[in-house]
Amino acid sequence: MTDSTLVNNEEIVNGNVSIIPLGGLGEFGLNMMVYETEDDLIVIDTGFMLPNSDMPGVDLIFPDIHYLVERKEKIRGILLTHGHEDHIGALAYVLRQLDVPVYSTQLTLAIASGRLREYGVLGKAQLNTIAPGDTVELGDFSAEFIHVTHSIPDSVAIALRTPIGVIVHTGDFKFDMTPIDGKLSDIQTLARLGSEGVLMLVSDSTNAERPGQTPSERSIYDTIDHIFQRTEQKLFLCTFSSSLHRIQQFIDLANRHRRLIAVSGRSLINNVRTASELGYLDVNPDYLIDARDASMFKPHEVVVLSTGSQGEPRSAMALMALDNHPFLKVEQGDTVVISARIIPGNEKAIGNVVNHLLRRGAKIYHERNADVHVSGHGSSEDLKLMINLLQPKFFMPMHGEYQNLVRHAELAESVGIPSENITVAEDGELIYLTPETCEVFGREGRSGRVLVDGKPEIELEDIVLRDRIQLSEDGIVVPIIVLHSDTGDGSQQEDTGADETASRREQSVTESTDNGSKTGLNAGEIEIISRGFVYMDKSEELIEEAKVITRRVIENLSDEQKHETEIVQDEVRGALRRFFSKQMQRTPLIFPVVMRV
Amino acid sequence: MTDSTLVNNEEIVNGNVSIIPLGGLGEFGLNMMVYETEDDLIVIDTGFMLPNSDMPGVDLIFPDIHYLVERKEKIRGILLTHGHEDHIGALAYVLRQLDVPVYSTQLTLAIASGRLREYGVLGKAQLNTIAPGDTVELGDFSAEFIHVTHSIPDSVAIALRTPIGVIVHTGDFKFDMTPIDGKLSDIQTLARLGSEGVLMLVSDSTNAERPGQTPSERSIYDTIDHIFQRTEQKLFLCTFSSSLHRIQQFIDLANRHRRLIAVSGRSLINNVRTASELGYLDVNPDYLIDARDASMFKPHEVVVLSTGSQGEPRSAMALMALDNHPFLKVEQGDTVVISARIIPGNEKAIGNVVNHLLRRGAKIYHERNADVHVSGHGSSEDLKLMINLLQPKFFMPMHGEYQNLVRHAELAESVGIPSENITVAEDGELIYLTPETCEVFGREGRSGRVLVDGKPEIELEDIVLRDRIQLSEDGIVVPIIVLHSDTGDGSQQEDTGADETASRREQSVTESTDNGSKTGLNAGEIEIISRGFVYMDKSEELIEEAKVITRRVIENLSDEQKHETEIVQDEVRGALRRFFSKQMQRTPLIFPVVMRV
Repeated sequence: MTDSTLVNNEEIVNGNVSIIPLGGLGEFGLNMMVYETEDDLIVIDTGFMLPNSDMPGVDLIFPDIHYLVERKEKIRGILLTHGHEDHIGALAYVLRQLDVPVYSTQLTLAIASGRLREYGVLGKAQLNTIAPGDTVELGDFSAEFIHVTHSIPDSVAIALRTPIGVIVHTGDFKFDMTPIDGKLSDIQTLARLGSEGVLMLVSDSTNAERPGQTPSERSIYDTIDHIFQRTEQKLFLCTFSSSLHRIQQFIDLANRHRRLIAVSGRSLINNVRTASELGYLDVNPDYLIDARDASMFKPHEVVVLSTGSQGEPRSAMALMALDNHPFLKVEQGDTVVISARIIPGNEKAIGNVVNHLLRRGAKIYHERNADVHVSGHGSSEDLKLMINLLQPKFFMPMHGEYQNLVRHAELAESVGIPSENITVAEDGELIYLTPETCEVFGREGRSGRVLVDGKPEIELEDIVLRDRIQLSEDGIVVPIIVLHSDTGDGSQQEDTGADETASRREQSVTESTDNGSKTGLNAGEIEIISRGFVYMDKSEELIEEAKVITRRVIENLSDEQKHETEIVQDEVRGALRRFFSKQMQRTPLIFPVVMRV
Repeated sequence: MTDSTLVNNEEIVNGNVSIIPLGGLGEFGLNMMVYETEDDLIVIDTGFMLPNSDMPGVDLIFPDIHYLVERKEKIRGILLTHGHEDHIGALAYVLRQLDVPVYSTQLTLAIASGRLREYGVLGKAQLNTIAPGDTVELGDFSAEFIHVTHSIPDSVAIALRTPIGVIVHTGDFKFDMTPIDGKLSDIQTLARLGSEGVLMLVSDSTNAERPGQTPSERSIYDTIDHIFQRTEQKLFLCTFSSSLHRIQQFIDLANRHRRLIAVSGRSLINNVRTASELGYLDVNPDYLIDARDASMFKPHEVVVLSTGSQGEPRSAMALMALDNHPFLKVEQGDTVVISARIIPGNEKAIGNVVNHLLRRGAKIYHERNADVHVSGHGSSEDLKLMINLLQPKFFMPMHGEYQNLVRHAELAESVGIPSENITVAEDGELIYLTPETCEVFGREGRSGRVLVDGKPEIELEDIVLRDRIQLSEDGIVVPIIVLHSDTGDGSQQEDTGADETASRREQSVTESTDNGSKTGLNAGEIEIISRGFVYMDKSEELIEEAKVITRRVIENLSDEQKHETEIVQDEVRGALRRFFSKQMQRTPLIFPVVMRV
């Protein structure tokens, strides 16, 4: 997490602005951007990220916020662009460490509040509701909130007036010309800003690699309508709990086709309740039923809304696929619609769920075989439109992997931004903006990621994660060596842990004690246990031989060496590593324990 | 690997045919199909599969061939359709256990021979070269080899004449109307078989979900040609080592653009050598250079052919992306073309390589942003053409995940095969074919997968793999409890394994011995070691407390209980599990060891 080009960022002068992406530039998720002058600092978005399969046991990933904690006196506010977890999921984590006001739209704050309550920080949180069009003064910054269309209502871009000019931070957006809630992206305000002059645009790169324009959210309506028409049995509609425009369309179609709506999944239930209470979702509560009661109705009378679109193993959809769900069942003739993006890395998990649902006889629709999903992010032409509306002097792509940022930079160049005015930066870099220049100044050494496994306040160390990955490759072998400092007889040591009744999991093979003629320290009992390396029941010979080798290694050590635990460990480890590698071509972790009695 | 509906397959009578897919129906890879009559048995293909990230440490997966070993007297031959590893990769594994003749085309056998030599079975292997058009008599079966186009030359479908009719097994195929080697799929023979009457078609489902026709291999030529034209620096072309038609086009384009060809990667070098020796590849050896010498030429004078298209971490491409390759370097202005399919599950790995190559300043082309790859498998319309050419009575999709098989079944129905004549089967099922019926008869209990980690002759047990996955989730904790059967003083036990000099990896925290007033068995030294659970350097308090809990558990046991190792283990495990779960919300494997002195 440290870097050689560590920079002291106390040099911001004359109202110039420093920009530090603490997350989201180089990955999807973790979105968090810092804008800073000499006296003031604001943060836009506080997102988390879910781990990939190469991070076993990790529950959540947060951005490292040391940079903020060290400057907490300067922070004038946290601004949230919209209510997706990759933009608000770390808010509770941040507010536990920082007492700063939060500004966002009504729905975004309502969704964020759920997790703040869970983490016990809702009481002390300073939540300030703004409406699109509002402006908030935050020291050197004045933030204007601009409505944009996205897959969740109440999304905003933010125009930051700074002492050196206007910076526009888009958040996630598309230009949906027929939005479900009728609220367009505020093209007029964007165009006005463009006319007045924008110093810098920082824009969403998610779909920079997609040609053309992203279709309207409304474009999937007819496809889903046809699926309703064709489905004579139960219908399952699966999407993200935050895709409220999608959910509104599902609700409208359920009404149209006279199906009751069973909502499954805690986050989905919460979001439907919150959004309908606040008027962001139009749903007649008479048509909502408890998912537990779905089986009381005829199959064609019900539609089930559910999460689990990414094949998450504990989701309702995954449980139904394996017929393990306590009360929902997918049967021959049912239809399942996965109305969500297949997030890269989740293909296998989703594929497994689809295969199992097909085995149950269901008909499956997903984005690869039907137009049941449309993105909430603008494609190439939308991104060009944003640049052309704002005509910024400087451009920086955000929100994406490096390849998306690079592609977005190419798009910006194609519409006339000079390449020297485009900055492709990554997390932890420090971008220094003046009225005439924008350049990467160095790296902020304390940026990075915080891995969480279990309690969110306990950080999972990188080294522990590396150990887990190594453990998973070839398992672990623990030789336990008892060294006797006297030459007593060994008769009392025969009853070892290796009872015949011991279960397989505990099984270990012990060797009878050999108190030979040597004096000083002698190897007494040697026990070898292992997990994830070989099947112990079938490997007695191998383990026996390993113990003979261990004993031989120790007997060949001098008394001085035997007194050095580290030497004993190193020698045993080396000998066993060579032995296992030759016998099995496997290289387990070998972790010798020396006990002295 | 066993199933309740285990069936005795000794009931095949009257020349009826039993079909048992031992792999490839339900996954990509492991292709192996058994066709069997009362007296004779043949096997088509012997493929392996590479593991997913959910199988840590696994090197290779082979089909379980118990079914074959138990019937080895009946086996008349192994027939190979083409030289891809998912069709020939398990041949050495099979021939180590079975002494049976192998039949295939010249190139397929030449490629297979490399691995047979490596495994030491080439000498005893009975390899019989056939040419497309040949027929081989194998007991009740007569096998006619029919040329088909695919991404590797010398691919064949197989028409099996059986006592009850003709079964056509397509292997992998497309209908390429302008193949690179000028050899078309033998549509005439397929049509003739269709006219004469085909009882059953067993066909490749890989691209059943793709609409339309798969374009010709030749269709990528112009795109790659343009990339050659635009590239002023080094050009890297990355594909599978077995994609020989692709490699031929790369060679032709290198000649056209006067670049020398550096081939990187052992499998690629071997295949280029083998294929050119046998006349399947037209390459002037004067234009081939050693990849080690690539840097001796100017960047525009060289094209580098390499493997690593799937982001494999030890591949040349992945090493270059991280600038870790010993002699190949990707630099600003270079171009990298990934001319291969992105195999599901590999998106993340490939994405990482692409991101790093972009950071080095390279221009990247891959199948998602340019037409640099075309599949070797037919799409929907090709699959329908195959069915229409053969007009089979019965149809069974093979080669794909369950969703691909289901889609292929739908295609077959759409061209007129009655749904009751279509069998969607999976690995290990036993399909019984008569002139009038084709149905799944039950399951062959001993089918499945053999996981290999390390030496191929040592099977990795499922239980060991499950242990690895569990280890990777939250690590392992090993409490080591020394039980004293006397009430001696504890002074001699002070020098434990926890030297101050011990490295972090070995660190463990020991508690001073407490030989209290109790008689009988007493807890002496207690040591707790762990990996992948917590960072021991920062968790001394937690481990200390865990030891206090362990000691308390043991002291509360009766003497009888203390004599039962399993009881001690269970009690300690339960107490520590509750403690760690409460403190950390983590659930490591807990594996207590009881030592008695």
